[in-house]
Amino acid sequence: MTAHQEALTGEHRGEPGTDTASAAASATTPATARADGARHLLSVSDLGAEGIEEVLRVSDAFVEVSKRVIPKVPALRGKTVVTLFVEESTRTKLSFETAAKRLSADVLSFNATSSSLKKGESLRDTVETIAAMGVDAFVVRHSAAGAPAAVARWVDTCVLNAGDGWHEHPTQALLDCCTIRQVLAERDGRMVAETGVECFKGLRVAIVGDIRHSRVARSNVLAFSALGAQVTLVAPGTLLPPAVEAWPVAGVSHDLDEVLPETDVCYLLRLQAERGVGGFLPSVREYAAAYGLNARRAAALADGALVMHPGPMNRGVEIADEVPDLPLSVILRQVANGVAVRMAVLFMLLGTPRDESPAGALAGLEDAWETGGG
Amino acid sequence: MTAHQEALTGEHRGEPGTDTASAAASATTPATARADGARHLLSVSDLGAEGIEEVLRVSDAFVEVSKRVIPKVPALRGKTVVTLFVEESTRTKLSFETAAKRLSADVLSFNATSSSLKKGESLRDTVETIAAMGVDAFVVRHSAAGAPAAVARWVDTCVLNAGDGWHEHPTQALLDCCTIRQVLAERDGRMVAETGVECFKGLRVAIVGDIRHSRVARSNVLAFSALGAQVTLVAPGTLLPPAVEAWPVAGVSHDLDEVLPETDVCYLLRLQAERGVGGFLPSVREYAAAYGLNARRAAALADGALVMHPGPMNRGVEIADEVPDLPLSVILRQVANGVAVRMAVLFMLLGTPRDESPAGALAGLEDAWETGGG
Amino acid sequence: MTAHQEALTGEHRGEPGTDTASAAASATTPATARADGARHLLSVSDLGAEGIEEVLRVSDAFVEVSKRVIPKVPALRGKTVVTLFVEESTRTKLSFETAAKRLSADVLSFNATSSSLKKGESLRDTVETIAAMGVDAFVVRHSAAGAPAAVARWVDTCVLNAGDGWHEHPTQALLDCCTIRQVLAERDGRMVAETGVECFKGLRVAIVGDIRHSRVARSNVLAFSALGAQVTLVAPGTLLPPAVEAWPVAGVSHDLDEVLPETDVCYLLRLQAERGVGGFLPSVREYAAAYGLNARRAAALADGALVMHPGPMNRGVEIADEVPDLPLSVILRQVANGVAVRMAVLFMLLGTPRDESPAGALAGLEDAWETGGG
Repeated sequence: MTAHQEALTGEHRGEPGTDTASAAASATTPATARADGARHLLSVSDLGAEGIEEVLRVSDAFVEVSKRVIPKVPALRGKTVVTLFVEESTRTKLSFETAAKRLSADVLSFNATSSSLKKGESLRDTVETIAAMGVDAFVVRHSAAGAPAAVARWVDTCVLNAGDGWHEHPTQALLDCCTIRQVLAERDGRMVAETGVECFKGLRVAIVGDIRHSRVARSNVLAFSALGAQVTLVAPGTLLPPAVEAWPVAGVSHDLDEVLPETDVCYLLRLQAERGVGGFLPSVREYAAAYGLNARRAAALADGALVMHPGPMNRGVEIADEVPDLPLSVILRQVANGVAVRMAVLFMLLGTPRDESPAGALAGLEDAWETGGG
Repeated sequence: MTAHQEALTGEHRGEPGTDTASAAASATTPATARADGARHLLSVSDLGAEGIEEVLRVSDAFVEVSKRVIPKVPALRGKTVVTLFVEESTRTKLSFETAAKRLSADVLSFNATSSSLKKGESLRDTVETIAAMGVDAFVVRHSAAGAPAAVARWVDTCVLNAGDGWHEHPTQALLDCCTIRQVLAERDGRMVAETGVECFKGLRVAIVGDIRHSRVARSNVLAFSALGAQVTLVAPGTLLPPAVEAWPVAGVSHDLDEVLPETDVCYLLRLQAERGVGGFLPSVREYAAAYGLNARRAAALADGALVMHPGPMNRGVEIADEVPDLPLSVILRQVANGVAVRMAVLFMLLGTPRDESPAGALAGLEDAWETGGG
Repeated sequence: MTAHQEALTGEHRGEPGTDTASAAASATTPATARADGARHLLSVSDLGAEGIEEVLRVSDAFVEVSKRVIPKVPALRGKTVVTLFVEESTRTKLSFETAAKRLSADVLSFNATSSSLKKGESLRDTVETIAAMGVDAFVVRHSAAGAPAAVARWVDTCVLNAGDGWHEHPTQALLDCCTIRQVLAERDGRMVAETGVECFKGLRVAIVGDIRHSRVARSNVLAFSALGAQVTLVAPGTLLPPAVEAWPVAGVSHDLDEVLPETDVCYLLRLQAERGVGGFLPSVREYAAAYGLNARRAAALADGALVMHPGPMNRGVEIADEVPDLPLSVILRQVANGVAVRMAVLFMLLGTPRDESPAGALAGLEDAWETGGG
């Protein structure tokens, strides 16, 4: 959505409230396609409900690929994917690199700490330089909201937002949707491929914790609400965002225990102490007592509820040590699906002709993959 | 060996004395095979004499591969090997990565210094997260003894110990055995493939230096003694381990000059000043005078003796500047064989069906490799 | 050139004046070929005019490869290229790694900051160790002039100088020549393949800025003058090298505005404040006023002039913010050609039999590449 992209330029921090408006407007646009130049994944609101569903369907194919003896396909052979992580990360970077390698792409890892950025080069010159080498996609993580959108304006290369400041983390939201859909389909004894996204209709999701500083919360609220879920934000007032009343959520609560019995998916956020949350809370101990999910609270959730967390976890803070190993926790499944979802979005952006739908391109390639490619 | 693995859990530092008991018990178990889940290489004592011999035989095949114009085989195509080095290293990491790439595996390098470990995530959560992405092996270096064994308990993924604290460094011992066997076979004018491990029977090995803080010493004592060599430890009293009397060695000496004429293999250890050896020695200069190998001392070794060092060397300390270039030094050959041995263990753990012997699987694949795979 | 190489040993800083003599002597030697062991690219003076022309012709082929849908060829399959960057760099390292991967080589990245060099191992032992693992080429960047030449003496492995101290940066000079030749051929409406290097005859090149501390200036003066260009150095007296009168240049000036109208190529150097230029200049502001290229000065250049910069740029210092985006700037084109030129030199050093000319080997391989290799 051009309008949306414009809004993201500079250091502007897009608010989900306004994003949702553009998401609605974009629902008729083919997901992630752009008439003008390279295609990007900058925000969940670029996708809309249809776009999310399309990503989930393509992800199904890659979940299947991941289970093969040789979980590798030649879909992006000869393409070069650059991971440009100006903010540190482990899991997201490894997940994207694993995804790119399973698609047979070459991966270049840009290490910001030993880079020309430290010699005073601007991010723009750095990005234009790397792009001039002939790369096909940038996977960008940056501490400043809007950085991936800026990169997308500077170069004619695909850009995937891998987390920008407090703004968005769209592949996290997509892998979370993928996981919920997969688990619910299994429970119903259905093939996930038969399942659309109707399982999200009316699903009661509680997002618990530091909403204010969380790009994961922003992207997930956009995705869940676009698919029809009822989202409740649960946090102390100091950890809610300034204009929370504009967010597309069903409600806001300061009482986790009250919300639990009405919750199908309990989504816990990391308390990001390293971003200076300290001033917002009297103490971590009090936070854990009021908002941490322990086994007792997990038992109070609605029947069949799921517990999710984007990681890395602070055990003993937002999640008690025993909870990740309970059957209702799908945290490691989120990680596993993360690779498949990132394969899907890389494939959709880089592996398909611009005038062809990803699903069509995928069908054409599947035959080749089955018969020995890779 | 389950008992052995149990012993390694937590921060316990396995002592070779006790390890040897379990090594004897394990001699009838197929090398590196486990009935329960993934196979690992955690300790030399898991292998026993038969297991070591099997690794050496498989290594022979990869030494040959390394000499080809294209030294690459498709044995692990589609597999992903993660190097998880929480303690810094150059040569071991490069050697494992080279080995994995020559087997056509994908390599992911986990950089502990820019990782979620720094955000306070536990090693266990980090490892479970990476495993959930669908990787096939962890190559683990850690400053804490027992860390690789702990990783092996947490995830159903192959684990290779690339050095843990003062405990073990099994691939170093294997490449050292490979090198000794290779050099001795060449001297006898025999094909190394015809050679078993009888060349180790009665071989007089002196391990010289900081035994106390050396995982290399621990693994090599286990390997050499399992194969029938007579090992003498040569060190000042402060650099001997606490319960040295329980080690399976022929003797202990504080006089290098006395030992040299009865030594076929002089194995020098790095004086690891960076681990705080300072308190154990009056001065590095005195150490070098008493225990450093110079050309004069090298000339006093038994006829046809070899000088070995695991690297990195402190020239002028445990080894005089002129010694590495003497004909009796096989130090660079150790490095070269390191890649072949690591190809062998990666192949044995990842490339062979669990119900098939590595030698059988290897024979089957050789034909394919010869005719253009890779 | 053996004599030249000898001159580079130790910390000696080769001066272009003397290098040129040996460059003339080497003009009859096949480019980059050595009778004695591995071939290297250490200095522009090793190549001579013929050698430079040969690299440019091979680069043409790789410029074409870079434009393909799958810009990858199997020329170096099974070869291992090690990037050994003891001094930090972004663009040169990424460019070499991209080039190596597009030739299907495996790339190992040696991270000096987490290496055994920090444990006190000598550079020589580090290099010999890596070489023993069976690698095929070292790409070396080092803060000490002569380090790549030293590496070339220590091991029987190809060495490519990726920048050593204030000495040389030969691939930068080659990619700059490639870019000038390409742009001038396009203007004349000719295929670049038909063009030799006669376009450099009489070409008026101004190299502007910190000549004293610039390896780029040294390599480019050697290359441009070998090809017949007339080079003028433009700098304040404190930023000229000590024995500038021995350099093969047409002139030296302290007045940029006077030089501009007689300049066909204006080559700006980075003001390398991080190397302690501070003492050589009253202030960065004064430098920018006297020697910075802004739009007004760019308009004063000769008709059809080009502006070049090796990057990373200090916008607002040696180059005004508006200049890189002017049509006469070919700065990003330099970056793009850098990958093709590095593919060319890697291919010439590693991919061709020693008794065959690179052009002949290339012709033989082209057929295979066209028909589906990679």
